[in-house]
Amino acid sequence: MTVQTLDDIHELAQQLRVDSIRCSTAAGSGHPTSSMSAADVMAALLTRHLRYDWQRPDDPANDHLIFSKGHASPLLYSMFKAAGVITDEELMTGYRQFGSRLEGHPTPVLPWVDVATGSLGQGLPDGVGVALAGRYLDELPYRVWVLCGDSEMAEGSMWEAFDKAAYYRLSNLTAIVDVNRLGQRGPTELGWDLDAYAKRVEAFGCHAIPIDGHDLGEIDKALGHAAEADRPTVILARTRKGRGFDEVEDREGWHGRPLPAEMAERAIVELGGERHLIVTGPRPEAGSPRTRPSGEVSLPRYELGAKVATRLAFGQALAAVGARPDVIALDGEVGNSTHAEEFAKKYPERYFEMFIAEQQMVAAAVGLSVRGYVPFAATFAAFLSRAYDFIRMSAISQANIRLSGSHAGVEIGADGPSQMALEDIAMMRAVHGSTVLYPSDATSAAYLVQEMAERSGIVYMRTTRGAYPVLYPPDETFPVGGAKVVRSSPDDQVTLIGAGVTLHNCLAAADELGRDGISARVLDLYSLKPIDTDALVAAASATGNRLVVAEDHYPQGGIGGAVLEAFSDANHRVHLIHLAVRGLPGSGTPAELMEAAGISAARIAQAARDLVRG
Amino acid sequence: MTVQTLDDIHELAQQLRVDSIRCSTAAGSGHPTSSMSAADVMAALLTRHLRYDWQRPDDPANDHLIFSKGHASPLLYSMFKAAGVITDEELMTGYRQFGSRLEGHPTPVLPWVDVATGSLGQGLPDGVGVALAGRYLDELPYRVWVLCGDSEMAEGSMWEAFDKAAYYRLSNLTAIVDVNRLGQRGPTELGWDLDAYAKRVEAFGCHAIPIDGHDLGEIDKALGHAAEADRPTVILARTRKGRGFDEVEDREGWHGRPLPAEMAERAIVELGGERHLIVTGPRPEAGSPRTRPSGEVSLPRYELGAKVATRLAFGQALAAVGARPDVIALDGEVGNSTHAEEFAKKYPERYFEMFIAEQQMVAAAVGLSVRGYVPFAATFAAFLSRAYDFIRMSAISQANIRLSGSHAGVEIGADGPSQMALEDIAMMRAVHGSTVLYPSDATSAAYLVQEMAERSGIVYMRTTRGAYPVLYPPDETFPVGGAKVVRSSPDDQVTLIGAGVTLHNCLAAADELGRDGISARVLDLYSLKPIDTDALVAAASATGNRLVVAEDHYPQGGIGGAVLEAFSDANHRVHLIHLAVRGLPGSGTPAELMEAAGISAARIAQAARDLVRG
Repeated sequence: MTVQTLDDIHELAQQLRVDSIRCSTAAGSGHPTSSMSAADVMAALLTRHLRYDWQRPDDPANDHLIFSKGHASPLLYSMFKAAGVITDEELMTGYRQFGSRLEGHPTPVLPWVDVATGSLGQGLPDGVGVALAGRYLDELPYRVWVLCGDSEMAEGSMWEAFDKAAYYRLSNLTAIVDVNRLGQRGPTELGWDLDAYAKRVEAFGCHAIPIDGHDLGEIDKALGHAAEADRPTVILARTRKGRGFDEVEDREGWHGRPLPAEMAERAIVELGGERHLIVTGPRPEAGSPRTRPSGEVSLPRYELGAKVATRLAFGQALAAVGARPDVIALDGEVGNSTHAEEFAKKYPERYFEMFIAEQQMVAAAVGLSVRGYVPFAATFAAFLSRAYDFIRMSAISQANIRLSGSHAGVEIGADGPSQMALEDIAMMRAVHGSTVLYPSDATSAAYLVQEMAERSGIVYMRTTRGAYPVLYPPDETFPVGGAKVVRSSPDDQVTLIGAGVTLHNCLAAADELGRDGISARVLDLYSLKPIDTDALVAAASATGNRLVVAEDHYPQGGIGGAVLEAFSDANHRVHLIHLAVRGLPGSGTPAELMEAAGISAARIAQAARDLVRG
Repeated sequence: MTVQTLDDIHELAQQLRVDSIRCSTAAGSGHPTSSMSAADVMAALLTRHLRYDWQRPDDPANDHLIFSKGHASPLLYSMFKAAGVITDEELMTGYRQFGSRLEGHPTPVLPWVDVATGSLGQGLPDGVGVALAGRYLDELPYRVWVLCGDSEMAEGSMWEAFDKAAYYRLSNLTAIVDVNRLGQRGPTELGWDLDAYAKRVEAFGCHAIPIDGHDLGEIDKALGHAAEADRPTVILARTRKGRGFDEVEDREGWHGRPLPAEMAERAIVELGGERHLIVTGPRPEAGSPRTRPSGEVSLPRYELGAKVATRLAFGQALAAVGARPDVIALDGEVGNSTHAEEFAKKYPERYFEMFIAEQQMVAAAVGLSVRGYVPFAATFAAFLSRAYDFIRMSAISQANIRLSGSHAGVEIGADGPSQMALEDIAMMRAVHGSTVLYPSDATSAAYLVQEMAERSGIVYMRTTRGAYPVLYPPDETFPVGGAKVVRSSPDDQVTLIGAGVTLHNCLAAADELGRDGISARVLDLYSLKPIDTDALVAAASATGNRLVVAEDHYPQGGIGGAVLEAFSDANHRVHLIHLAVRGLPGSGTPAELMEAAGISAARIAQAARDLVRG
């Protein structure tokens, strides 16, 4: 079917409804009614406005379609059937089944899906990232269409997205809000008050178009208008949940419930029966992303012993890695603290200020990753906790993003616990497929920034506020998954393990122990995930399996946890004293706070003495 | 000073500026310029509008003052000096010093501080919680005044707060936005565009009052108006950062920087010198919170072997614990899934629907905790990650809140990974002073809900989607920090450790092992933090130190991590096989997904056989 009248589109919409019902009833779970409300809008989009080459999902000129309301996956997959890229059989037998790519909520195991959704309030922020890429980097005229639920308008992250979309004048972004007035457990906050939504959206700088979401003429006009807008468009579509089947239409109690088989039969009859239309929508115009000249990456070099903060090395190395034209930096309004501003000075056109909106910052990185860019997002480590749901979902999105968290631990001193990040390592280690790096000096930090650019998945680097001596010469290498023996002798009786600031404390402790006649090995665990189990086992074996781990982090799930898990996996048993921040810290100097937390050189040395003499 | 003319208030404002400069210069860090912009508004508030008995900070009739822009702590502490509750000496020698209560950002170690701030975008959502308590629970006429920064208006959480404040008609809440147009690294998104702010705030249902934030007459009138409003008020105060000292006023580069000593001297001269006014503002009218009759808590009782989901037991027990009139429940629009709705049916007046706004949900709990209520907030465990920064900060706020996360792990089945929560245990264990509970059956879940109500700090319960057999008789007790040996014999060769759904898999594995002639002990680790180290050591010692841990969570920082940390702390060495979710799961049945993840009964039995025979 190629030329589509509104009647044709209506037929398609009914097919999408029928298929949404059929596949969810077959699966015994899913959200048919949330799919039926949006079927008219999606039918019109698919046939007349989405410029997409279904055979070539990687075509850079393609439009992007994101279901921020990921639970409407039956609708999305029914669209894929209508586009001819999945069969009716796959839809009916695969939906929500083990091993199938048609998961309960969309994920990029499907080539036509950009990002995983299902945690509400994320698809639109992700779409902002894709639209940023389109407008400022690719410089391609593709459009980003995001289907949003009305319930998710209660998530603050949606407003971060509208705000940034307007700030960056993302006229290539269209949000379609399926205002079906019913959430999971009952009516939404604003019901069908399109006017209230419109006021909010307009106040945030976007163009609101309220429509009857079941009037194909209105829908078509609104979608056409969106394509010509000079700012982001938000189509507010008043719809009815379960539209088209009277027994459930606009009724409570039908969220996330497939229709029982008999009901499904009645619904299909009411909707005019099964159809198997294959439609052809508009194609993208041929186009290639703008290319930029590539330079040579020349990492900063630091003099041994010079005092340089790892956060500064991060920023300087990021600026160096920026010689790669695909590297992009995102700031959470603290670029002068994280030193991301070093990149901004050199490559302002590839630096996006996201202000204090960490969720949107991470989501923008995900969106940039969709288009193949190499985004680095930086803020205080403590404030990455604000975006944890986004980071968690990034892993499911198979996004490749790099996060840098500065000012970690009690070492920050006077600002106090709100700024300290004492749970970030636990948080980041638990993310699927993540990499967690924690360099102790500028040389290793700079090297690892370059590694981050090469690495896939969610890659996190923790940096330190204060300036500490450079430990390694400029040409030393720091493979991800490695560790460094910083000090050793054949007589070592104990291994001291640190990373970041505590490595320096370990070195000072080793000095102190040396004066007491105790020889201590020191291990720099700059890569916490993956972790160098061999290096840990070797160090333990060489030092009587006596280990002290010191970390500027709460005791649960951090460096100590990583080390214990590694030894357990290796079935290698050790005597380990674990020094970590056990109380709630206040303000003070770094030295005072590390001493109080029991992670100072003196406390490390004491623990080592206890082990050796005990 | 008791009767305050506007001239008096000006004098006080200058004192607040001078003291903000003096204390931050003395400390060598802090945010004087962010304090100076808001000094006029705060001087007027303190003298004429804040009804507060400074000698009795626990007076329930007191107004509440929250600095959402916590970095303006010099201003807040200068107000405390002006109120006569801290001395000039404490301010000058204590600010940001080790061991002092005048921390870099405010925390409730000070009796006049309700909540810790410093992570932006949290003080206002917390204030919404306090205002909810005032209007709906205490039924007292106290007002909640929140000083916000303009930079933090970029945080989505602020818009969750405005939205909920309007939804709940919190006319007792006034946000004062200090629009000084400069953030940390440069101008804010909206600068001095008060009109843009006003449109947004009005669109969200609040009443905006734009003023010149240095005109005491305008300020006074706006604050007076706020006190008489019928909906939440947002005073948009156009101010100049560093106001009153020409060298820094409205200039970039002075965020978070104390003035050098010489500059501070010049500033103090320009501001008219040091002053030591003590002011008396309005007192609260005498009043007591509404009391409600207390009932007897009668926990639900479950028949041994009956299949009951722990999430249902949570909801039923919560409804039972609701006999305590201080227990409040908060829902994130999934009350029919978490079963928090069981509470709503019984106590609708103590149930607050927060819709899909998890950050505001947790913040509201914190605010209710400020007023001594016993809040329980529930959503899918996966979506608590959305509020992690709020949970982290709750610990610093010394809040007592209870969180329940349902639908944890691959066990949820068809909905797929976006809904699974495979990092929540790591996340929650790392929170300072947290309690982490993970019951396996309805009896223990119900008992632990009652324990949660009694317990302080951040208390988390993870619940399971599916219904599994009740394992314990109704009168069994489950102290927090305990564990249960569910199955044992003198011949046990291995201990199987599980919690939640994996405990049932451990029991099935023990059956299977029994058929192979291997006797296995089974330990129910329902309390993950605190953890029962004695029980772990006893079980290990009795079973040849052979252990299998199975968890429906990623491998890092979860149950395995907790067990390893406990054995390490006890210096007790074991052979442990750790079964956890190592791949990225998709959709499927619970059984398929647990088998694929390697945490099924069969996989547990195989690991045990490997240990015993290996």
